[in-house]
Amino acid sequence: MEPLKMHCETLDVSLKKGPDMCDISTLLIGSIEVSGIHEGCLNATMVGSTGSLTTIEYEPGVVEDLKNAMARMAPPDIPYAHELAWHDGNGHSHVQAALMGPSISLPIRQGRLRLGTWQQVVAINHDNCSRRRSIEVTIVGF
Amino acid sequence: MEPLKMHCETLDVSLKKGPDMCDISTLLIGSIEVSGIHEGCLNATMVGSTGSLTTIEYEPGVVEDLKNAMARMAPPDIPYAHELAWHDGNGHSHVQAALMGPSISLPIRQGRLRLGTWQQVVAINHDNCSRRRSIEVTIVGF
Amino acid sequence: MEPLKMHCETLDVSLKKGPDMCDISTLLIGSIEVSGIHEGCLNATMVGSTGSLTTIEYEPGVVEDLKNAMARMAPPDIPYAHELAWHDGNGHSHVQAALMGPSISLPIRQGRLRLGTWQQVVAINHDNCSRRRSIEVTIVGF
Repeated sequence: MEPLKMHCETLDVSLKKGPDMCDISTLLIGSIEVSGIHEGCLNATMVGSTGSLTTIEYEPGVVEDLKNAMARMAPPDIPYAHELAWHDGNGHSHVQAALMGPSISLPIRQGRLRLGTWQQVVAINHDNCSRRRSIEVTIVGF
Repeated sequence: MEPLKMHCETLDVSLKKGPDMCDISTLLIGSIEVSGIHEGCLNATMVGSTGSLTTIEYEPGVVEDLKNAMARMAPPDIPYAHELAWHDGNGHSHVQAALMGPSISLPIRQGRLRLGTWQQVVAINHDNCSRRRSIEVTIVGF
Repeated sequence: MEPLKMHCETLDVSLKKGPDMCDISTLLIGSIEVSGIHEGCLNATMVGSTGSLTTIEYEPGVVEDLKNAMARMAPPDIPYAHELAWHDGNGHSHVQAALMGPSISLPIRQGRLRLGTWQQVVAINHDNCSRRRSIEVTIVGF
């Protein structure tokens, strides 16, 4: 049996003042191609405590709807204990990112991410300023 | 040292109009048995942007309570921007699935999923119609 | 090429009546050191249906803010169907844990967790009593 391989890579994305999100599916497929791995699992993790990753149908409507839902879960305009100490206005950003989670693990099949036709991977910036973010990608498989 | 092995498999589940969920623990344990892997990690990913995976105590009360909580996070009866363009009535389904996440990674120990006694893995359909869903399973270990 | 290695370990944490959380980053870094793995991926899973894992900036303000957000998502003082059958007062605990998820997968780079400077891994007890919890750690890499 062929031994398992691993490929690690750092991706960089620029995101506007949160909530902002971008489709990183093409970047991830690029990492898979570089890895030469055809079947396995890809883990991606957004570095930083005010960012997150998930999958959505990446069209403007769902993007807006998801932003609204995150604002219901952690509204920007209520008091946050984080603010009392740090006064940086991003208490809601920390909470939203913790609820969404920084990581996602997805299947690789036939050299591609195995997702639905209308399912893309998005990187989300919840912070109250634009951010350049690192996403660490770890791919294991054959 | 014995080399690491990997096993990939596609499971299919039929789910009713969302929110609907089913316990997939037995299916996952079946995949582990087929893999012959006794210790490692299992990743499962629901393919599609209106499905998700998590763990719960799978009893009717918690199932109902979780459905209610998801309806509070993304109620079916409020306006969604996704609807304005697509008119398919499932804006809330997309948002709920994005908040829950499509994937889960769990430990394998002694040839079984290592979970709590009252902890099962559930597949959730958030869509507003019944769906046959694929779950991609990737197992890595010895 | 050097073969991929795997290291599995069980960590134990004691948590107070929920919502309670503790920083487990140092414990995870300890597991990575024991593993001798310098680059790869770490999966951690909280065993039990009323616990969860995520990352936050671990300072008292964010801890309080996240507890408040979880209480908005699944308030302890509303009726739960789980209660009608089981009367153990922790319907909200089950729902919160299911929404947060029991697992997290994170990158290892240069022998350490690759996270933001102000980003720590936290274990959360949502249950309405103190709990001693097992966290299963699976590390794969070189």
